[in-house]
Amino acid sequence: MKKYYIGADIGGTTVKMGLYSEEAGWVEKWEIPTRTEKSGAYILPDVADTIAQTCAGHGISMADVAGIGVGVPGPVLRNGTVNGCVNLGWGVVNVADVLGGLTNLPVYVANDANIAALGEQWKGAGSAYQSVVLLTLGTGVGGGVILDGRIVTGVVGGAGEVGHMPVFDHSEGACNCGKDNCLELAGSATGVLRDAKRRLAESDAPSAMRGIENLTAKDVCDCCAAGDTLAQACIRRTTDALGTAIASIGCVLNPEAFLFGGGMAAAGELLLEPIRKVYREKVFPPLRDTPVLRATLGNEAGITGGVRLVQVSQEK
Amino acid sequence: MKKYYIGADIGGTTVKMGLYSEEAGWVEKWEIPTRTEKSGAYILPDVADTIAQTCAGHGISMADVAGIGVGVPGPVLRNGTVNGCVNLGWGVVNVADVLGGLTNLPVYVANDANIAALGEQWKGAGSAYQSVVLLTLGTGVGGGVILDGRIVTGVVGGAGEVGHMPVFDHSEGACNCGKDNCLELAGSATGVLRDAKRRLAESDAPSAMRGIENLTAKDVCDCCAAGDTLAQACIRRTTDALGTAIASIGCVLNPEAFLFGGGMAAAGELLLEPIRKVYREKVFPPLRDTPVLRATLGNEAGITGGVRLVQVSQEK
Repeated sequence: MKKYYIGADIGGTTVKMGLYSEEAGWVEKWEIPTRTEKSGAYILPDVADTIAQTCAGHGISMADVAGIGVGVPGPVLRNGTVNGCVNLGWGVVNVADVLGGLTNLPVYVANDANIAALGEQWKGAGSAYQSVVLLTLGTGVGGGVILDGRIVTGVVGGAGEVGHMPVFDHSEGACNCGKDNCLELAGSATGVLRDAKRRLAESDAPSAMRGIENLTAKDVCDCCAAGDTLAQACIRRTTDALGTAIASIGCVLNPEAFLFGGGMAAAGELLLEPIRKVYREKVFPPLRDTPVLRATLGNEAGITGGVRLVQVSQEK
Repeated sequence: MKKYYIGADIGGTTVKMGLYSEEAGWVEKWEIPTRTEKSGAYILPDVADTIAQTCAGHGISMADVAGIGVGVPGPVLRNGTVNGCVNLGWGVVNVADVLGGLTNLPVYVANDANIAALGEQWKGAGSAYQSVVLLTLGTGVGGGVILDGRIVTGVVGGAGEVGHMPVFDHSEGACNCGKDNCLELAGSATGVLRDAKRRLAESDAPSAMRGIENLTAKDVCDCCAAGDTLAQACIRRTTDALGTAIASIGCVLNPEAFLFGGGMAAAGELLLEPIRKVYREKVFPPLRDTPVLRATLGNEAGITGGVRLVQVSQEK
């Protein structure tokens, strides 16, 4: 009986890692720098080395490790192939094959937002449910769809790309994806900040935001909470877009809960309460009571989901 | 080894039935009237009787029938309970238990649009795929989500209720569901007709539609095809809404194909070509090439999906 699991969440700056015991929970959580030079060629060897060292340090034989679950910041096909990760310097890499070869362990790979969703469904805000949709509000808007405790990947790894749902019927400026109508343009920290700056430039209305050097999305949230009219308009645009998006998702999947994570979600009820209100107004009425919750695992959602990905992949 | 399957598609007017042989395909397809009187109390006994008679007529023992797959026009919970079917006169009915008790056969139940989607995925326009989303354009807009060859039901049977996705940011009049922004208001025959009448009333522009008594949605499509400007505006509204909706669904699920069925889909490329164009403009760019196809099974999608529902339900 294999008793240990590894979760690895590969980001553009660090790789977050976790060693998990079936009986005792987390044995160790740690991180290493992500070496993106040479097209990211060192990343997976570094991961393999640190796993071997950490297991050895705890006196754990690799033979007792059931596998590694890896999240990567890009689309992942079902066979473990990553079709390009700009942030890591990768082109097409079969992470399952490469890391599996380096470690002699079974390796399962998923998109980072997808694997975070699995983590939240297993141990976080979604732990009472089998089917949840996570939206992560950060630099962009990512997401993951979990049905019956498993990640929905999509035919080319595009499931959960909720940040690019078309929620505007007019141009809201350029999204990184090349479109101009994406949820991400309103639901991300970047989108909130850009909108706040536009509003400040276009009007002479007084606003507490004008006095803030190096304005951030958090400042916009704070000013909104303090009653600043301009900041409130920014946040209303954001919560309208997010509430509409989950109403659409609700009519397609009818999940048990919606979860919001990522840096922006730290604003908590300031965002969630109006998102719930818009959701209830716009969703198919029998689905109005779906819980809309804040994700709880923060930066550990990815490694948690990595552990779970090994478990569900080996269930049958 | 059980060799036969029954598919039953219970509608407000008729119950469509099919007896299917593992080896030889359809043995018989038939229909009986739906008796909605007495709160629909006769419907399931009638279905049980006609199954017994038809099997007997073919010399088939009920012991050789693997089960019955039933589509019903309402939301269905996973345990086979139907939470009210207005068209049938039903309140809460556990169809699996009742029909199972009457026939001594395993009974599996799904929403009618969901089971039609399963039929199309198995034997129709989706037969090359495992994961498809069907939209049915009729009096309303229904739908079904098939992932990995199985129906996605949703926590209260609301998955696939794509007709109520909020695709308008303004009121488009009253939908049956109580909202005023639903896809159905533009994507259904009812919605097309209502929009055409409104445009005719609000303008003096010449239109071939003005000369048509008892205008239908098909007339609007025909006038559109003949170059009528007002009819073209109606259909553009419809295809804009449908293209936007599947672009949203694409960003959530990234299915292998989108299928369009129902009476309105008979207009074929007149609708599908502009829907594809809007989809490609609005979806996450890596997902632009998802096929958008016309469903092919017509009225037999439901009974076909019924047979398949028995098969997939008994697979493990």
